[in-house]
Amino acid sequence: MLLEKGDQLLMIGDSITDCGRARPVGEGFAAALGDGYVRLVSALLTAVYPEKVIRVVNMGVSGNTVRDLKARRETDVLALRPDWLSIMIGVNDVWRQFDSPHMVETHVLPEEYEDTLETLVKQTRPNLKGLVLMRPFYIEPLREDAMRSTVDLYGEIVKKIAEKYNAIFVDTQAAFDKLLQHGHSSRYSWDRVHPELSGHMDIAKAFLDAIGFDWNRRDF
Amino acid sequence: MLLEKGDQLLMIGDSITDCGRARPVGEGFAAALGDGYVRLVSALLTAVYPEKVIRVVNMGVSGNTVRDLKARRETDVLALRPDWLSIMIGVNDVWRQFDSPHMVETHVLPEEYEDTLETLVKQTRPNLKGLVLMRPFYIEPLREDAMRSTVDLYGEIVKKIAEKYNAIFVDTQAAFDKLLQHGHSSRYSWDRVHPELSGHMDIAKAFLDAIGFDWNRRDF
Amino acid sequence: MLLEKGDQLLMIGDSITDCGRARPVGEGFAAALGDGYVRLVSALLTAVYPEKVIRVVNMGVSGNTVRDLKARRETDVLALRPDWLSIMIGVNDVWRQFDSPHMVETHVLPEEYEDTLETLVKQTRPNLKGLVLMRPFYIEPLREDAMRSTVDLYGEIVKKIAEKYNAIFVDTQAAFDKLLQHGHSSRYSWDRVHPELSGHMDIAKAFLDAIGFDWNRRDF
Amino acid sequence: MLLEKGDQLLMIGDSITDCGRARPVGEGFAAALGDGYVRLVSALLTAVYPEKVIRVVNMGVSGNTVRDLKARRETDVLALRPDWLSIMIGVNDVWRQFDSPHMVETHVLPEEYEDTLETLVKQTRPNLKGLVLMRPFYIEPLREDAMRSTVDLYGEIVKKIAEKYNAIFVDTQAAFDKLLQHGHSSRYSWDRVHPELSGHMDIAKAFLDAIGFDWNRRDF
Amino acid sequence: MLLEKGDQLLMIGDSITDCGRARPVGEGFAAALGDGYVRLVSALLTAVYPEKVIRVVNMGVSGNTVRDLKARRETDVLALRPDWLSIMIGVNDVWRQFDSPHMVETHVLPEEYEDTLETLVKQTRPNLKGLVLMRPFYIEPLREDAMRSTVDLYGEIVKKIAEKYNAIFVDTQAAFDKLLQHGHSSRYSWDRVHPELSGHMDIAKAFLDAIGFDWNRRDF
Amino acid sequence: MLLEKGDQLLMIGDSITDCGRARPVGEGFAAALGDGYVRLVSALLTAVYPEKVIRVVNMGVSGNTVRDLKARRETDVLALRPDWLSIMIGVNDVWRQFDSPHMVETHVLPEEYEDTLETLVKQTRPNLKGLVLMRPFYIEPLREDAMRSTVDLYGEIVKKIAEKYNAIFVDTQAAFDKLLQHGHSSRYSWDRVHPELSGHMDIAKAFLDAIGFDWNRRDF
Amino acid sequence: MLLEKGDQLLMIGDSITDCGRARPVGEGFAAALGDGYVRLVSALLTAVYPEKVIRVVNMGVSGNTVRDLKARRETDVLALRPDWLSIMIGVNDVWRQFDSPHMVETHVLPEEYEDTLETLVKQTRPNLKGLVLMRPFYIEPLREDAMRSTVDLYGEIVKKIAEKYNAIFVDTQAAFDKLLQHGHSSRYSWDRVHPELSGHMDIAKAFLDAIGFDWNRRDF
Amino acid sequence: MLLEKGDQLLMIGDSITDCGRARPVGEGFAAALGDGYVRLVSALLTAVYPEKVIRVVNMGVSGNTVRDLKARRETDVLALRPDWLSIMIGVNDVWRQFDSPHMVETHVLPEEYEDTLETLVKQTRPNLKGLVLMRPFYIEPLREDAMRSTVDLYGEIVKKIAEKYNAIFVDTQAAFDKLLQHGHSSRYSWDRVHPELSGHMDIAKAFLDAIGFDWNRRDF
Repeated sequence: MLLEKGDQLLMIGDSITDCGRARPVGEGFAAALGDGYVRLVSALLTAVYPEKVIRVVNMGVSGNTVRDLKARRETDVLALRPDWLSIMIGVNDVWRQFDSPHMVETHVLPEEYEDTLETLVKQTRPNLKGLVLMRPFYIEPLREDAMRSTVDLYGEIVKKIAEKYNAIFVDTQAAFDKLLQHGHSSRYSWDRVHPELSGHMDIAKAFLDAIGFDWNRRDF
Repeated sequence: MLLEKGDQLLMIGDSITDCGRARPVGEGFAAALGDGYVRLVSALLTAVYPEKVIRVVNMGVSGNTVRDLKARRETDVLALRPDWLSIMIGVNDVWRQFDSPHMVETHVLPEEYEDTLETLVKQTRPNLKGLVLMRPFYIEPLREDAMRSTVDLYGEIVKKIAEKYNAIFVDTQAAFDKLLQHGHSSRYSWDRVHPELSGHMDIAKAFLDAIGFDWNRRDF
Repeated sequence: MLLEKGDQLLMIGDSITDCGRARPVGEGFAAALGDGYVRLVSALLTAVYPEKVIRVVNMGVSGNTVRDLKARRETDVLALRPDWLSIMIGVNDVWRQFDSPHMVETHVLPEEYEDTLETLVKQTRPNLKGLVLMRPFYIEPLREDAMRSTVDLYGEIVKKIAEKYNAIFVDTQAAFDKLLQHGHSSRYSWDRVHPELSGHMDIAKAFLDAIGFDWNRRDF
Repeated sequence: MLLEKGDQLLMIGDSITDCGRARPVGEGFAAALGDGYVRLVSALLTAVYPEKVIRVVNMGVSGNTVRDLKARRETDVLALRPDWLSIMIGVNDVWRQFDSPHMVETHVLPEEYEDTLETLVKQTRPNLKGLVLMRPFYIEPLREDAMRSTVDLYGEIVKKIAEKYNAIFVDTQAAFDKLLQHGHSSRYSWDRVHPELSGHMDIAKAFLDAIGFDWNRRDF
Repeated sequence: MLLEKGDQLLMIGDSITDCGRARPVGEGFAAALGDGYVRLVSALLTAVYPEKVIRVVNMGVSGNTVRDLKARRETDVLALRPDWLSIMIGVNDVWRQFDSPHMVETHVLPEEYEDTLETLVKQTRPNLKGLVLMRPFYIEPLREDAMRSTVDLYGEIVKKIAEKYNAIFVDTQAAFDKLLQHGHSSRYSWDRVHPELSGHMDIAKAFLDAIGFDWNRRDF
Repeated sequence: MLLEKGDQLLMIGDSITDCGRARPVGEGFAAALGDGYVRLVSALLTAVYPEKVIRVVNMGVSGNTVRDLKARRETDVLALRPDWLSIMIGVNDVWRQFDSPHMVETHVLPEEYEDTLETLVKQTRPNLKGLVLMRPFYIEPLREDAMRSTVDLYGEIVKKIAEKYNAIFVDTQAAFDKLLQHGHSSRYSWDRVHPELSGHMDIAKAFLDAIGFDWNRRDF
Repeated sequence: MLLEKGDQLLMIGDSITDCGRARPVGEGFAAALGDGYVRLVSALLTAVYPEKVIRVVNMGVSGNTVRDLKARRETDVLALRPDWLSIMIGVNDVWRQFDSPHMVETHVLPEEYEDTLETLVKQTRPNLKGLVLMRPFYIEPLREDAMRSTVDLYGEIVKKIAEKYNAIFVDTQAAFDKLLQHGHSSRYSWDRVHPELSGHMDIAKAFLDAIGFDWNRRDF
Repeated sequence: MLLEKGDQLLMIGDSITDCGRARPVGEGFAAALGDGYVRLVSALLTAVYPEKVIRVVNMGVSGNTVRDLKARRETDVLALRPDWLSIMIGVNDVWRQFDSPHMVETHVLPEEYEDTLETLVKQTRPNLKGLVLMRPFYIEPLREDAMRSTVDLYGEIVKKIAEKYNAIFVDTQAAFDKLLQHGHSSRYSWDRVHPELSGHMDIAKAFLDAIGFDWNRRDF
């Protein structure tokens, strides 16, 4: 497993990350980590690697786009001095284009998204032991859905940046696509953006698999 | 306009009808009618046909399927002695099959749906001046979506029963399909089942058009 | 219809406009627009002209008089850069003279009202594609009522200014007077100032008629 | 003053009497008497006639019409064995005809009102030392207002019954008409039915004057 | 009656005056005046002298001593420019000596009380048409009670200052002493400091009597 | 100390005993015992005699008179099978005569008080290892106060019954009289009936002294 | 994995199971399953075996002992017709002996515990496809702690019964003992009974391991 | 008893001291002192030494370590000018090392603890008549528990400093150890840090014994 003893893992993103975390800093006992995948990641790290004493911090903020992450880089990432950082951002950048077509200033188009994310990654990567970029997803299997195809486009941008800056890429969309073969989107999410707990578990598993978590570890 | 002076119009259905109406009976001032299409129908009838003094009653109950409507026929319809009745039911009958596949006793399959609705209509029609059957809808334009195609099937059942029992059929799905040509489903609804107010206005308009409402009436 | 694709319509006024809108800016999904005529205007524009993607913003503030509107011109109108502006103000200017005769500093007398409104209109008109001035109303048919006759006087001032500055004038009082021929004031309002939803629908219809809204539009 | 030492005065009526009194019985310290004229009557009786130790009980219920009072006669009047009873009822009997013209079963027309009130008075009078009938009122000076003229009609019925059954008649409408010569209805009430505290004081004074209360009493 | 048309009467004091008044300024409709004697004074002035249009303002603050009144003179009295001012202060100055003997800095001893009150009166009197000084009271008839005898001492100071500065003196203690001849203190107050509504009515009557209020006035 | 290992001590009374205890039975951790002397007695018994494992149960009910205790004997005392019982009742029996002179049916006069208490004691004593009767008290040192002298009278009745039925008599009034030599009643209670915590400690000490509690016990 | 397509798994127990589940039946979306291990089990089953469509139901009740489970067998287990049942009970049976030594009727001693649990298992086993008995645990590594050694004793009883009735035994205590080698009890629980989320994850893992859950499953 | 007439005793510490005290200063009536040992100390001082009129002030803050006390020295101790000061601090300094091993910046290790406490004591002692240092405790009898042995170490530091700076040392751990001989830790505390009321009484007794409180005092 890639995380080392005493490492701090900071997870940043939008409402899917936030899930009601404590303010100003989402850390401490479980409720402080919100009620989503961050909390599950922390619980699994403690339950399976207790001696590693990993510190998980949730800095997600509901409604955030990549613009907000960039603005929060100093206060909400660097100031906390994480060893590892995970970023999952982009669905709001897309969603506003579809649910609020009249509020054009809230739309983050692909070019701006790519530039902003790349700047953020480039500036932050040197401060980190490891960086994880998680693909934004839409819990909809039909690729002809306009929002799904747009989210896919943003996901490709994330993948490209991950490769360029030596970050671990977590394909959350692929994880959901497997689940969607066995059930309608409404089984996993009421709005195709925010997952039920089973979906958060799906994200946590994809994340942990990507950092070499050993689910069958017994020798501790 | 088909409704006559002093007529009572009772509208029954599920959460799309309910929208927080008063209990036990949803009537009186506007808040008692919930915050959906029923309230809009009532406000438009009063604003355009004030001398008709139409009484609108909302008896929707969130989560209802056609089974529940049948069970409530005596207490929630006949006991109130409406002149006109509107029914919009079916989306929960379908939705549970998709969001709760493990809770099979909550699934109302097409045959049961048709039998139950037909019995309800047959028994109730003689007590009424007029009956309006509103098609259940799913705010999703892609017909290959499994839930959309299932809701379509239930909608056809409603249409068939409407024709057989001399009821006015309101094609709410067609009304939403027009809107969906000009915007993604997330513009009109966060879960494709419960509309934003613009969607409720769309339903109200479809209903009122079906009963001969004159939007340009000035001579009163 | 006079509004063009992508136009922003900002509606300002007192509690009849406000109706519990979101702060600091009343826009977004329906609840953010309050529970009055602004929300109905927005829903109707979306339901009948979805391709126009009109943005409606509610900047009403309960208790406001024309003095307050003038003070809020920069922050609450110009800063949001609307294409169209509607103003409905004046009933509080009058009401305080009748319900709080001892609080004389809250009374806005006709001369001050006219000067202030004219200044506001003159300064703001050049920044707008279109301006709508809605007449303040009192839901009371007896013109010998002292407050009705005073509100009428203020309404005439609005009409005069509308003509002078090329604004669309909406005669809401005339709309209510028609309703009052078919029912007592208590049917439409509990205090003759704040309408029930049917009254808000009445205002919305008067407004939309004035900007060329086609209620029977089907070809979209 | 007509009330004697240790007498219980029970005051029954609608929301104007109720004003948030305690349930099931409105008596005890001041908050239990609601926030209207009943509490003021009690406070004045205690402050000016402390040695009389009068017991005031508030049994008003919001929304009541004369039908409700009749139904509550046993449980809410006789069971408490008052010495004196005051009744003020009728405005809801009228109001529903104007604010809810579509809910015809809530309208208590003059004939039913008179019959019901007379039955109530006839059956209850023998159990009492004294009975006070207070005129229902509408805080509107223009007699051509349809609701004012209807309330006047009901007031005349009360007066007739008071004379026939040896009850003290309190002309609350006359008391309000004096106030309305010096201010608009909105100064005394927001809906012309429920008074501000000054209006409740007006009712309390009219009631106390009618039972011989000496405002300038000093010799105790 | 001494107050003239359009006069503003500002009443200042401690919790007995405050009674939950609105902040920052206690004026407007009745609830803004708190639930004590100030509200009763206002209601009686409106009900009996409606044409005078007297403005009553409540600036009481719970827990205040004379020190606080002095500190609030500019902001809470002069800035509001009253025509008449009433002051009732002193019971907290005394009470803290008895209920909190260990908190000596909260005790306002007689000398400080007299100096502070006199300074306040001397500086404020010239700005007023009339000044009313109401005696602080303790609802306890036994003069050998230590707190009663102390409050009596402070009351004498108030009386002396009233005479010296041409203020109307209202002997609220005498008014309560009459009531206490006909009932135990627990009938009028739960703690001998805060009156029940009957006690507030007693204060209001004493105040109004002192300014020449005509309880039997009919000719308006 | 008279209580033996495993004994249950049930304490019954009015609001001074109740103090917000749990329902239906006031036992378990400290909050369940209310916030008065019962909780203090329990904490002291545990802290000083931990090996005795005494079970303290609070069955006080606010507002109770001796009538209520008699009615609750079966359900609230016998059914719980206490070894020891303490009773403190009587202040409400007296208080209502003073604070609510008009509600005569709430007054428990001395004869009824004595008869009822004696019956209660006589019937219950045989079921108990020990019975403690605590004197009702009034936190007022002046014996010429009418309520103090009446409470004294009821206290003498309690003392007489305690002697007759072999119960331990706790003179809480004497305990408070000592405190009142060193401070005004308002230091220990805001209404002379409900003590501050120091007063509850005073009651707890008087009770524990009476059952032989050794405050200086160290040998456990 | 032992559970088959469409199986219902009902999990019963005390507060560790309950965790705020919905009433009367804890099923549906995730919040209805409480916030403990049941919810995690359900999420993991859905995320890794989506095609199995397993139905998980939480029937835990805070504070329950084995006595309560027996009493709830008909209504809370059989009536819901589960295919699989898990039981985790016993810590309250023990805890009351230690935290409430004075409330002896709440203590379930080993003999009663064994008899009751065995009866429950014997009667219920035939109705089930599979039964899982989870060992009660105490999050304390020192076996000389009196409560730990007592819980161990109860755990042995569960193990014995599991073997006798062909149930799967889940050794949750062993799972916690491993964690306690790498951290103090306060890291995993604030009271050594209720785990933090990491502890719930530990329970869920132990349970899923026991039923053959494949953590590395990818072929679906 | 060491405290003299009119002395102020300020008690500072962490959540065991705080217990919900009033902000910003915990003094006045009992609720302002929180619900722990401070309130009990105050009540006992008033009940047994009423003529001393001791002022007790609670300045505990939940979660505090010795670092926080040092930071609050000026504002929360010196500014209030106490005569006597008690300090009980240290359990959070230790606890975070065990419940939050990953949050290393919250760990106050022994050396820092000793230095900080000594500085605080040295600087503050000259301003005081008397200083009481209360040992931090852990309600766990097994000394091999890692947290118990660490708290013991910190307790020794406190003892050493008390001796060096002429402070009274209160051995709260010894007091709890006696109780733990007669019951499990869960009888006195749910988390071994925060005591039940019996434990707070235990602390209060240990404190009062240390300052020469005479439990059997009768001559006042």
